[in-house]
Amino acid sequence: MSTNGILIGMAGGTGSGKSLVSKRIVQNLGSDDVAVIEQDAYYKDLTYMSVEERAHYNFDHPDSIDHEMLLHQVKELLAGRAVEQPIYDFAKHTHKEETKRFGPHHIIILEGILILYYPRLRELMDIKVFVDTDADIRLLRRLKRDVKERGRSVDSVLEQYEKSVRPMHQQFVEPTKRYADIIIPQGGHNMVAINLFQTKIESLLREKA
Amino acid sequence: MSTNGILIGMAGGTGSGKSLVSKRIVQNLGSDDVAVIEQDAYYKDLTYMSVEERAHYNFDHPDSIDHEMLLHQVKELLAGRAVEQPIYDFAKHTHKEETKRFGPHHIIILEGILILYYPRLRELMDIKVFVDTDADIRLLRRLKRDVKERGRSVDSVLEQYEKSVRPMHQQFVEPTKRYADIIIPQGGHNMVAINLFQTKIESLLREKA
Repeated sequence: MSTNGILIGMAGGTGSGKSLVSKRIVQNLGSDDVAVIEQDAYYKDLTYMSVEERAHYNFDHPDSIDHEMLLHQVKELLAGRAVEQPIYDFAKHTHKEETKRFGPHHIIILEGILILYYPRLRELMDIKVFVDTDADIRLLRRLKRDVKERGRSVDSVLEQYEKSVRPMHQQFVEPTKRYADIIIPQGGHNMVAINLFQTKIESLLREKA
Repeated sequence: MSTNGILIGMAGGTGSGKSLVSKRIVQNLGSDDVAVIEQDAYYKDLTYMSVEERAHYNFDHPDSIDHEMLLHQVKELLAGRAVEQPIYDFAKHTHKEETKRFGPHHIIILEGILILYYPRLRELMDIKVFVDTDADIRLLRRLKRDVKERGRSVDSVLEQYEKSVRPMHQQFVEPTKRYADIIIPQGGHNMVAINLFQTKIESLLREKA
């Protein structure tokens, strides 16, 4: 790790509360030096597939993420440079033409279900976190979110959960708990854990200053 | 919590590495303000039992700990006062006549397999930690320790493990993971986790100063 920045990996299953943990930490710090990158922004561009094929694509598999591009951009950020992040079109499953300028930020929280899966990305991380929430609570949160916020039917959410989300979780997400330095139970409402990370990051920022 | 001190609970099964985590944190801080209390010092005095009865006593059950006395002394410490700690005679399973003056210390790490089991003790804790290490690794460590350091036979260690340590762990220790704010995998060699706690405690000490 011959880099200047600090990289924190924040993994955990769907509905585990990992996004909320990341967001709370960044909000409470209120510093431009700290920012979150979501794994979802790096879904591969599926332009070459038919609409039919895209509909059946497995978005919970590690191959769905352009982890090479993510790795490249993370390295740039850790070296103190800004990057042009892809903007994903979740309806079409393609990259939009425009990109989003991101950084430079001294401390990056990398967040996503599979973020501890990729070895070369893992090697760059200073702290590896797994947010561990019971599977039934995770399903419950995902169901609420997808129905309320994304207008999907209960049946379609449950079908996707059983056919793809759950088996991919067990095969690829859950085993990455092994790599965690710290496990946070009960996701976004665990203020003690959030506070612990905040103190650590504040200390890292002070060291830099 | 109308107390002045800070209480950190550090639980985990036998051989999980919780003592090493606690000791490393305290050593690295090198401050008289921080000290560890081991649950084992509060085993009940079994003077009233015959030697035969003591030999068959279940030392892995929550009832084996004088948690009322422990609670009382913890409250005293959190209020900024010193206490007279019992000194346990592990050969006779009784309290020695002399006691040990302990404290005052501003930050107390309370460490033991069942330390998250007792509700009134739990309520006093500012941070609840569970050190989570795989069961086979824990058995391996316990076997090495009891044979090398305590001169016991392999057979007797394994028999105790199967008859008492393991069932008590599953019934009483493992379920307290639920109460943890933070789970530390891989015990005493997890330097990232140790460092995180150190930073937090340093920050608490600075706040006090």
